[in-house]
Parts: sequence; C-alpha cells; structure tokens
Amino acid sequence: MEDNLIHPSNSRVEVAQSNAFIATFELSPAGSGPLDGLCFGVKDLIDVAGWKTGCGNPTWYDSHPAAVANAVCVEQLLQAGARCVGKTILDELAFSLLGQNHFYGTPLNPRAPDRVPGGSSSGSASAVACGLVDFALATDTSGSVRVPASNCGVWGFRPSHGFISLAGVNPLAPTFDTIGVLARSADVLAEAALVLLSVASVPATKPGRIHVIKEAFALVDADVQQALLEPVRRLQNHFGARAREASVTELGTDELALATWSNTYCIIQWAEIKSCLGAWIAAAKPEFGPDIAASFNLVNQLDRRRVAAALQQRERYSQSLHDFLKPGDLVCMPTTPALAPRKGDAPPRSSSGSGYYPRLLALTSLAGIGRLPQVSLPVADLAGVPVGLSLLARHGQDAFLLETAKSLAGLFE
Amino acid sequence: MEDNLIHPSNSRVEVAQSNAFIATFELSPAGSGPLDGLCFGVKDLIDVAGWKTGCGNPTWYDSHPAAVANAVCVEQLLQAGARCVGKTILDELAFSLLGQNHFYGTPLNPRAPDRVPGGSSSGSASAVACGLVDFALATDTSGSVRVPASNCGVWGFRPSHGFISLAGVNPLAPTFDTIGVLARSADVLAEAALVLLSVASVPATKPGRIHVIKEAFALVDADVQQALLEPVRRLQNHFGARAREASVTELGTDELALATWSNTYCIIQWAEIKSCLGAWIAAAKPEFGPDIAASFNLVNQLDRRRVAAALQQRERYSQSLHDFLKPGDLVCMPTTPALAPRKGDAPPRSSSGSGYYPRLLALTSLAGIGRLPQVSLPVADLAGVPVGLSLLARHGQDAFLLETAKSLAGLFE
Repeated sequence: MEDNLIHPSNSRVEVAQSNAFIATFELSPAGSGPLDGLCFGVKDLIDVAGWKTGCGNPTWYDSHPAAVANAVCVEQLLQAGARCVGKTILDELAFSLLGQNHFYGTPLNPRAPDRVPGGSSSGSASAVACGLVDFALATDTSGSVRVPASNCGVWGFRPSHGFISLAGVNPLAPTFDTIGVLARSADVLAEAALVLLSVASVPATKPGRIHVIKEAFALVDADVQQALLEPVRRLQNHFGARAREASVTELGTDELALATWSNTYCIIQWAEIKSCLGAWIAAAKPEFGPDIAASFNLVNQLDRRRVAAALQQRERYSQSLHDFLKPGDLVCMPTTPALAPRKGDAPPRSSSGSGYYPRLLALTSLAGIGRLPQVSLPVADLAGVPVGLSLLARHGQDAFLLETAKSLAGLFE
Repeated sequence: MEDNLIHPSNSRVEVAQSNAFIATFELSPAGSGPLDGLCFGVKDLIDVAGWKTGCGNPTWYDSHPAAVANAVCVEQLLQAGARCVGKTILDELAFSLLGQNHFYGTPLNPRAPDRVPGGSSSGSASAVACGLVDFALATDTSGSVRVPASNCGVWGFRPSHGFISLAGVNPLAPTFDTIGVLARSADVLAEAALVLLSVASVPATKPGRIHVIKEAFALVDADVQQALLEPVRRLQNHFGARAREASVTELGTDELALATWSNTYCIIQWAEIKSCLGAWIAAAKPEFGPDIAASFNLVNQLDRRRVAAALQQRERYSQSLHDFLKPGDLVCMPTTPALAPRKGDAPPRSSSGSGYYPRLLALTSLAGIGRLPQVSLPVADLAGVPVGLSLLARHGQDAFLLETAKSLAGLFE
C-alpha cells in the first residue's frame, strides 16, 4: 500500500490507518469536465482495467481473471476530469450492511473508531470520511451506499434503478442493484452523480410536498429519534405548509408496518443472489467469514416458489408509491434505525423481528421496492457518532433530488 | 435429443428437424395459474437448475459450472402453471441478429427454410414457429426477440427496461438487456409476458394516438414496404383520426435520420459488452465462429472515451421520447428493414452505411435508447416469407401495449 499517491486536500488519516483500500494506484483523468481536480476510490466490486475485481473474498479473487476494461461508470468519471486513486474494501460479495470483512478487516469509521463503518461499501465510505478521496464509487442493493454514508457521516446517493450503467459491476441481485456515490459534500455528491446519470441539468420541477413518514421515525431507537428532531424541525420550517406527516398506509402498504416492504424485498433479493452467485459458490466452495456464511445459508433455505408472489407484491407496492409521489414530492425518513453497531458486536442477520437488521431493511427496502432515488444527508450526531437523514423522490427524479439536497445542506450546518 | 417429451397440440415439425433445441427435458409446473397447460422453451442464456448455461459457445460451456437454481423468470413461468421442455439454441454469447451458430447450426425457419431464423434467440423463435412450444423465453438487447419474431412469423415482446428480473441470465450489455417472450399467438404472448411483468391486469389507459414513423418505412426494402401497406392501412382505419404520420424529428433526434439512435446505441452496447465479456474472452481465449469473431473485433476497437458522450446523448433522446409519447400513445414501424437473409449469405456486421445491419439497428435501437416496450406482430408475408410490424409504447406501459396488440390481432387475419 503506497500512501504517497493519495493527496486530497483535506486528508486527516493516513491510507494504511484507514484500512479503506484494497489497493492504491493512480489513474489519470481521460478528459476534462465538472470533476476536474477531484479524486475518487472504486469499490472492489467494480472493474478497473488491469486489476482483478476481488469482490471482498479471496476465493473470488483467486478464481477470476483481471478486468480488461474499466467499468462504464469508472470511464464516465475519468472522462469528466476525476482521477482514480484506488480500489476500496467491501463486505464479502457485497452481501452485508455492517462493514466488517473477515479477510481484509474493518475500514476505519473515523468519526466513531469503535464502531463499524457500515457496508457493504465500507471502504468507499471510510475513504471519504477519512478525507482520502473527494468521493467514491459504490453499489447499493439493500442499502450498501446509504447505510455506510449514515454511519460514517458522509453524503450518500442511491439512484433510481436502471439509470446508471452496471456494465463491469459484479451482479448481486439485478432487480435492486444500483451504482451509487459517497461524497464529502452535497456539491461533490451532485456533481459526480450527475456525471454518472449522464444529465447535465435539472428538469424544471415544481417543488412539491415533503412527506415525513411517522412509522419510520417510530421504528428507530430513541436516541436516533432525538438526534433527528432538530434537523426534521428545520426541514419542516423550510417547507412550511408543504411539509406534512404521512403514514406508510398512504404509500401503499397493506398493513400498518414498514416490514411489508422488507419481507417482499428479502424474498426477491435472496432468490436473485442465489441465481447470481449460487453456481460459483457450489463449484468454487469458497471460504466465507462466519456472518456471510450465515447469510448465504438463509439464501439457500429460501423456497423459490415464493418468488413469483413476492414479485407481484413488489409491483403493487411500486405502483402505489408511483401514484402517491407526485413530481417534486419528497419522502423523509431516518437512514438507519440505530447508531452504527460497535465493532465485533455484529447483530445477527435475520429478516424479521425487532433487531437491527430487520428494522434497517424496513427502512432501506422502500427505495429498492419503488425503484426510487434516495440521498442520505449527514445531518446530526450523538456524542460525535454520526446519524443520517434520508430524502427520497419519485422514480427518475434523481437530478431534482440531488439539487434539492444541495440546496438544503445549509439548513443543517 | 428425445422427441417424445414435447407434445404441444400444434406441432408441425419434429424436434430434431427444427434444430431449435440444445437439450430437451421435462420440467413440471411448480404451481397453477394463467399458463396452465402451456409449454415453453428457454434460450440457453438463461439458467435452468442442473443444466450448464452454454450461451451458444462451446468454450463458455466447458468453462462454467452448472446452474444451481432456475433463473427467476423461469421460476415465475413454472409457478404460473407452464412446463419447460428444453433449452434453445442461440447465437454465440447472444451477440448477433442472424441466427446462424457456427458450432450448433442454424435453427429452422419453417416458413422460409432457405432463410435464417434471425438471432440471437434463434432456437426460441424456431421452436415457436415449428409449433414445438406454445411460447419461449428469450433475451433482447439489440433486437434478439423482435428480429427472429419478424423473420419466423411469430409474436415477439421486448419489455420496458428494468421490469423483468434478469437474475440467472448472462449479461451482455446491462443498459439494454431485457427478458422477452416469443409466442404463437397474441393471447399466449400477453399471458406469459404479464406473468413475467408480475402484473395481473392493465392499468386503465385512455387510448391515445398511433404515430406511423415515415422515415422508418422509407428505410426498408421496397418489397417490405409493399407487404406492410395493407396492415398499416388497416391500423390507420382502426385508429381513424388518432392515426397520424410522424417524423423522427418529433421524437427527439437531432438529425433527419434514424441512424442517430443506432450510432449512440452501438457505442454504449459495445463498451458494455467488453465490460461484461472481455475478461473472460482474454482469459479463456474461446474459439468463435467467423462472424462473431468479427463482431468482437469491433468491440475491441471501440475508443471507450466515446462512451460518456454517447450516454449523455442517450439520455437526451430518451427524455425526448418520454416527452413525446403520452400515456396510451403507440409508435408504429417495421420490425426489420428486409426479409430474413438467405442462409450462408450473412450480411457483414457494420454499424454505419446502408447495409442490412445498420438499417436493422436503426429500427431496433429506438426501444433500447428509450427503454420502451415493443411488440412485433406477424402481420404479413411476401411469397410466404414472414414480415413483422412493430408497435411501441411509453416506458412502463407494457400491459397496455400487450392488451392493445391482442385487441388488434384480428385486424390482420
């Protein structure tokens, strides 16, 4: 690991100390544009020409050839003037939201060094939070951009599904896979995301309502609720009569519970993960860390005959969300249900109950189910431990959401 | 190859004679529903548990393990009552629109035995046209459902991008990859497609206008123009004042040419193909048939620095199409620019000029660029050689398009 290649202006932590990178190198810009002068890291699920894409697992690394081309998203960033400085650590095969890799370690969460950075884009979030890069490329299927953004106190963007190229990115669950961005500021987040979305400007959108989802706030720990009170109050003041408390029942769930989204989400995700990774796992018999092995056991236990009904449920929810959210509308909810878990204190993976994972997925699966864009804003902290707040918009209104997030950033300073 | 397993009611050709299948077997329904009593084939780019997905190339077959799960789309069809009877031949790695596989031969086009079936879903189209299955699963990136549907005289559906699960399907160019259906009738097409789309019924859509694109008709061979005159006249009579002649300039192209779509399309597609298949090709050094080898040479020659600008152009076109097409609107154009080429008379791959391929891509890339759903209707023939006509709808209006195609089928009988 060579520290001397990374020189962003605001570096506060050495590269080796961060444990954010699996490899560092220098890839020069291939053009000039809105990202001139910025540097970025790439989650090691995404191809950089000449490097093996390791996907966070040594058996994967050993059993795959090197990439011969940059992923399309990497190409877009280089073409827009940014330089790439390395590949970042992730959870094994991107299948965790914690950020502790059994083989490669836990990237530093510099704002809360005794806590996990969140995953699976752990190294990308850490590199941004440590000031080693201006922004980082990552993927978000279940929350792998949004959760580490919240845990590490940086900005995170998950796009509408289907609007950023996934060529050169290892699939996990294609129905939900997206390319996202983590960044040190709302401005950098928007600049990088707009390059990836291939749109130059915001379509004119009449500002709509902001729906503050009461069940989402009721779901989170009391201390997180407390930390978000003031930021939400400022948003409500800013939006005035256009801010309203909303219920999940208005958004199309058929029960008084956010879990209706995550139950549906998990069935589809697990079925797709088995389709994407099952053959390789059966053939290569990789060693996994204990948490990831347990997650893959859940995947293998799924009765695939449940998938068709889950997909129908997903389309009903998605249609309801589409009907409810008008152009210019925003949804406001916490990004995560709790502070980042302490290192080594990993909450067990399960999809139901009141533990960390089920509540987390209840919050993050809304964007997955609805194909919606979401930004996690680093608006608060509890004794220095970061707490994120999320805004979502209608499918396809990514540029509007990014510009709105930029315009609101000042509220929380 | 065991013929005795396939017994659809209207079989006209023996399985071996069709050369449509790479393997036949019997996979029972996993449930009961709208597809009860129907049987289907699966393009061998799509996983069936226990079988290797060969992707039309022997080196691929030899270098990959067997699938451990059915692709999600296969699971949906089995769950809805259909039974699967085999895997169908395709062009190597799905990267051709002709349907001649150097290693596995050319599936029979029963309506025009001296002509190619079209690709890359050659076996799926042949199996349907030969009456060996009621419908077939296929993929469509550049036209791999629509072109063989037109050539073989069957119904073909390409969905809106992002609405049918691609888990368990080998990626070619993810920005454009879709799962589609070929079927012997509009009714079966709609039933199977609605199962895959996970929607039960059609959202109420006010019938809109039908835009007959004049440059698309001007682009095709005179005999194809002639064959489509009467079907288009019947459509115009049916729609009355809501039928209108339209120009590509209204659809957002910046030149008076359909080629503006296909030029943009090809740059993105080739970049994504290299990202998806380049590392394997470099490592496995597969033997390719001469046509496919030439196509991969084009991919390797692409200057990837053109990709960012092409993606921006794509989003401009896509937005223009979205603005132009209102809910309930249809676009009407020929599916292909010429009759199916004669076997062995393969037109050379190129992306510009007035040859078969550039004109074909000029027609098929509209759906890819705009993420639009498209149905190819088997409405005409020239001395028995089939000619298809296409209808497209707004992104997300797949159910409306399928129901409309069903309701129009009688016009062409």
